[in-house]
Amino acid sequence: MKRIGILGGLGPESTAVYYEYITREYYRRYRNYAYPEIIIYSFSFQEFIDAGYEASGKVKMAIENLHKAGADFVIAACNSLHIVFEEVSGNISIPWLSIIDAAAQEIKTKNIKKVGLLGTIFTMNKDFYRKGLARHNIETIIPSGEDRVKINNIIYKELVLNEIRDDSRQIILEIIRKLSRRGAEGVVLGCTELPFLIRQKDTSVKVFDTTTIHTRKALQIALGEEEI
Amino acid sequence: MKRIGILGGLGPESTAVYYEYITREYYRRYRNYAYPEIIIYSFSFQEFIDAGYEASGKVKMAIENLHKAGADFVIAACNSLHIVFEEVSGNISIPWLSIIDAAAQEIKTKNIKKVGLLGTIFTMNKDFYRKGLARHNIETIIPSGEDRVKINNIIYKELVLNEIRDDSRQIILEIIRKLSRRGAEGVVLGCTELPFLIRQKDTSVKVFDTTTIHTRKALQIALGEEEI
Repeated sequence: MKRIGILGGLGPESTAVYYEYITREYYRRYRNYAYPEIIIYSFSFQEFIDAGYEASGKVKMAIENLHKAGADFVIAACNSLHIVFEEVSGNISIPWLSIIDAAAQEIKTKNIKKVGLLGTIFTMNKDFYRKGLARHNIETIIPSGEDRVKINNIIYKELVLNEIRDDSRQIILEIIRKLSRRGAEGVVLGCTELPFLIRQKDTSVKVFDTTTIHTRKALQIALGEEEI
Repeated sequence: MKRIGILGGLGPESTAVYYEYITREYYRRYRNYAYPEIIIYSFSFQEFIDAGYEASGKVKMAIENLHKAGADFVIAACNSLHIVFEEVSGNISIPWLSIIDAAAQEIKTKNIKKVGLLGTIFTMNKDFYRKGLARHNIETIIPSGEDRVKINNIIYKELVLNEIRDDSRQIILEIIRKLSRRGAEGVVLGCTELPFLIRQKDTSVKVFDTTTIHTRKALQIALGEEEI
């Protein structure tokens, strides 16, 4: 079994969900307690918000620390942090499994060519996510400027604190409907906190929950069922 | 701020609670996201159950790995693991904050001299916890053999899987009443999963929730408010 390294804390609530998804899914499948070992490096969230997540030196240091602590590969429990993925991933001692590549593989299995992207303002405004999906021939559209601000506020003022509000859910669902009318065949919950609020049962548009997709793939790699 | 190292996975549900307690309590106090950094080494639970937690070599290795990854001190998110505390803690590169010492300090602030101890069969049957409290002049009594088996089954068959049952709560509350009749002035929830089931509001006997006591102290040390 491989040891899973997790870059966490961005924010802490989704890091806890990553950890619980992996351990609970392991038990659900195998009905024993021989979980893979997991090593988590949890950052101080504020400094990443202040830097717009562009803290590649700090991320590289944390990955090397996870390597020293025994991790065989690493995942980041945060979509926005993938802004430094291209810069960092070729230059570290262990492989980093991208959440964007994991999402793209899942999107392709559904034969979907065009998706709407929801996430933090960093994830929606910058081009790293769009480019990452384009490499898999998936086209990305994003909400209007006004709607991007609404989503960002819901993430940072509510979801990172595990505050779940139905009025906020309705706002996001209306944004998903608009993306669907603009041709999105599916919507990527491109922030690991968004699945706290939006589930597939809430909408007829196909939802890609990056947290579940990513953790499931990390578990399969740890168990040797998939290659990284 | 000091970096907190956590030995986890024994079981994973209480490790997630440790992480959430620290980050949520930090936010509750300071209303910002500048959480302390936290590094978690999560073991594979089964090998510790099989070894009766007496895996001092593995524990020492994990603590040294946490040190290499940057942790300034370490806590174990598991009472039973403290069976190796005496053997390991004098022989590692960073301080290990004992959950037993943290519990004892809290018990002394309540002027309590005699407590009942609930935990896994390892924690109740072996003498490390009793001796650890005795060093602080606190006397420990444990449930009958039959009741110890009942508690152990509730922990391993339900609580480590986050399964919360009211009939099991009633069994534990009856055991707490028996300990009280035998002279216990308080009861130590000496397993980090027991607070999932038993809260202070459930009983008139003073309850010591080791998870909350330990995480609060770890946060205070990380913030420089207390010395380790």
